Amino acid sequence: MRTLVGDERILMKHGAGGRAMRRLIEEVLTEGLAAGGRPGDRGLKAMDDGAALRVGDQWLVITTDSHVVHPLFFPGGDIGRLAISGTVNDLSMMGATEVLGLTCAIVIEEGFARADLVRVQQSMRATAHEAGAAIVTGDTKVMGRGELDGLVLNTTGVALTDRVVSDAALQPGDVLIVTGTIGDHGFAVMAARHGLALDGALQSDVAPLNDMIRRVLRAGGEGVVAMKDPTRGGVASSMHEMASKAQLSIVIDETAVPVTEQARAASELLGIDPLHVANEGKAVIGVRAAAADAVLQALHAHPLGRRAAIVGRCVEGRPSVVLDTGVGRRLLMEPEGEPLPRIC
Amino acid sequence: MRTLVGDERILMKHGAGGRAMRRLIEEVLTEGLAAGGRPGDRGLKAMDDGAALRVGDQWLVITTDSHVVHPLFFPGGDIGRLAISGTVNDLSMMGATEVLGLTCAIVIEEGFARADLVRVQQSMRATAHEAGAAIVTGDTKVMGRGELDGLVLNTTGVALTDRVVSDAALQPGDVLIVTGTIGDHGFAVMAARHGLALDGALQSDVAPLNDMIRRVLRAGGEGVVAMKDPTRGGVASSMHEMASKAQLSIVIDETAVPVTEQARAASELLGIDPLHVANEGKAVIGVRAAAADAVLQALHAHPLGRRAAIVGRCVEGRPSVVLDTGVGRRLLMEPEGEPLPRIC
Repeated sequence: MRTLVGDERILMKHGAGGRAMRRLIEEVLTEGLAAGGRPGDRGLKAMDDGAALRVGDQWLVITTDSHVVHPLFFPGGDIGRLAISGTVNDLSMMGATEVLGLTCAIVIEEGFARADLVRVQQSMRATAHEAGAAIVTGDTKVMGRGELDGLVLNTTGVALTDRVVSDAALQPGDVLIVTGTIGDHGFAVMAARHGLALDGALQSDVAPLNDMIRRVLRAGGEGVVAMKDPTRGGVASSMHEMASKAQLSIVIDETAVPVTEQARAASELLGIDPLHVANEGKAVIGVRAAAADAVLQALHAHPLGRRAAIVGRCVEGRPSVVLDTGVGRRLLMEPEGEPLPRIC
Repeated sequence: MRTLVGDERILMKHGAGGRAMRRLIEEVLTEGLAAGGRPGDRGLKAMDDGAALRVGDQWLVITTDSHVVHPLFFPGGDIGRLAISGTVNDLSMMGATEVLGLTCAIVIEEGFARADLVRVQQSMRATAHEAGAAIVTGDTKVMGRGELDGLVLNTTGVALTDRVVSDAALQPGDVLIVTGTIGDHGFAVMAARHGLALDGALQSDVAPLNDMIRRVLRAGGEGVVAMKDPTRGGVASSMHEMASKAQLSIVIDETAVPVTEQARAASELLGIDPLHVANEGKAVIGVRAAAADAVLQALHAHPLGRRAAIVGRCVEGRPSVVLDTGVGRRLLMEPEGEPLPRIC
């Protein structure tokens, strides 16, 4: 049975991080759900990377993600590293860089190789250690052969913070920083999946960013006003979400956006803009102009931020993302979704 | 490729809540994972229903579960009610009955009916409301047609409590209470799946227990020493885990175990002992003998605890579960796993 009418059945784009997914979430999943939340908590209605719950005089930040990346092992990482990094990074983007604990729920297909499970587990453990975090509880389910393609991994994280950074607080005049080269994760997975000749040279950037973000927050203080990790839908989706929430226009200087040679080559080969491709070890950081230098310095001093660059500025105007190509300006459309399914 | 040697590939029993799953978790999943945890936190090594993390002078309890039940809609409930109830109940079993927040991560198969997604979401919302809890954040992924059988739903919950109840603190002389009839969830799902004639009469017991457990804790105070929700593997698995952790023997009075007529009929038809069948709205509660009456009274006054009964006692001895059938005694073996796959 294919789709009868428009959206009556779920399509791949509904999980692809773009406009289609946002609509599904708003229309079905969050509809009414925030009701019942405690007054003062920041939950689903904020559509942020997680929720912030009042605990004493602090915020408990909580975030969850299920991971369905295919293949499970790709150049530069695997589903285990992806899950831990993704959760640590979502917490970090809300300003919560000291992880209290991570949970890990695994759904495994019958017949899955035990050796691969051990490999994924070791990768999770190593990545958690890198992030100074611990996996504190978990769950294991098995589905029959053919009922699941390999492995689905859910991680949820909790962290305490005194100050929550949202993704909605940009103002005209603010500066947008990308913490390094973009598109590496998405292009590496695409290359691995399709056996592109570029394969070996492309590496996913998947990494936990909490240590780097801790330094950013120390350097920039209250001048760090908005953060987002540009995963599904890439930097373009993140910028669109930030512009829309803050009701302003973001102008991106395309020539300033850092892209590796290999990602550039993949981009040209596949005809896919790196701005639309998923990252798993990068952040888009919005800062007050006065804080930009200090934040950039902190980033450049960190191994994961060496190629950080100012790539955009906020201006008054209708919510939009404008691309300054160096020879002219055009609107950067909000992607309907990540071009590749099961990228994370 | 079928299994070459013993456990080299994951089998259905590895997700079935019994001995095989416990071994997989110990050998692969928790091996080394608790390392890195903060001193004083109670995490994976305790193998409890969740972890307890120190936050100020309280405990933050966190628990996670992925749900793969088949069919998604069954007599008495659905995967949405199951997910919320399961998470609320795991928190409650650790003594944390005031839910701070729940997360919900959905993985959907391409082609899934949007109307069914709405139905699941509405059920989650209603069940969360029943438990006085809010879903505060979520995640949505889509897998291709044939890559996933319908829907996988992960819920994680956090709650604060002053006192953590473990499942390990039983002593000889303690009394074991079951809060109502057993096996209803498992038999209802079996009947629905196999189209047994019993179908209509069997109803899953799936329900959030936090309100009832709150009253139990108020009534029994420090006399409530151990709690467990007997899901996969049923009451038998829970009793075995409790006996093994406390290093004592549990004697169950089989004639005292409440079972509905319909579940009894299903049990005889299928040749499956209700003690081995999953429950989703019941608890096994270990109490000091002096607190038993007060706890039982509190249970009988609650709509979900009307048929609560004392079913067992703890005695000194090697870890074991002994079944007193009324005409004799025999060892109740630890099940290798739940008899039915994808029961929750």
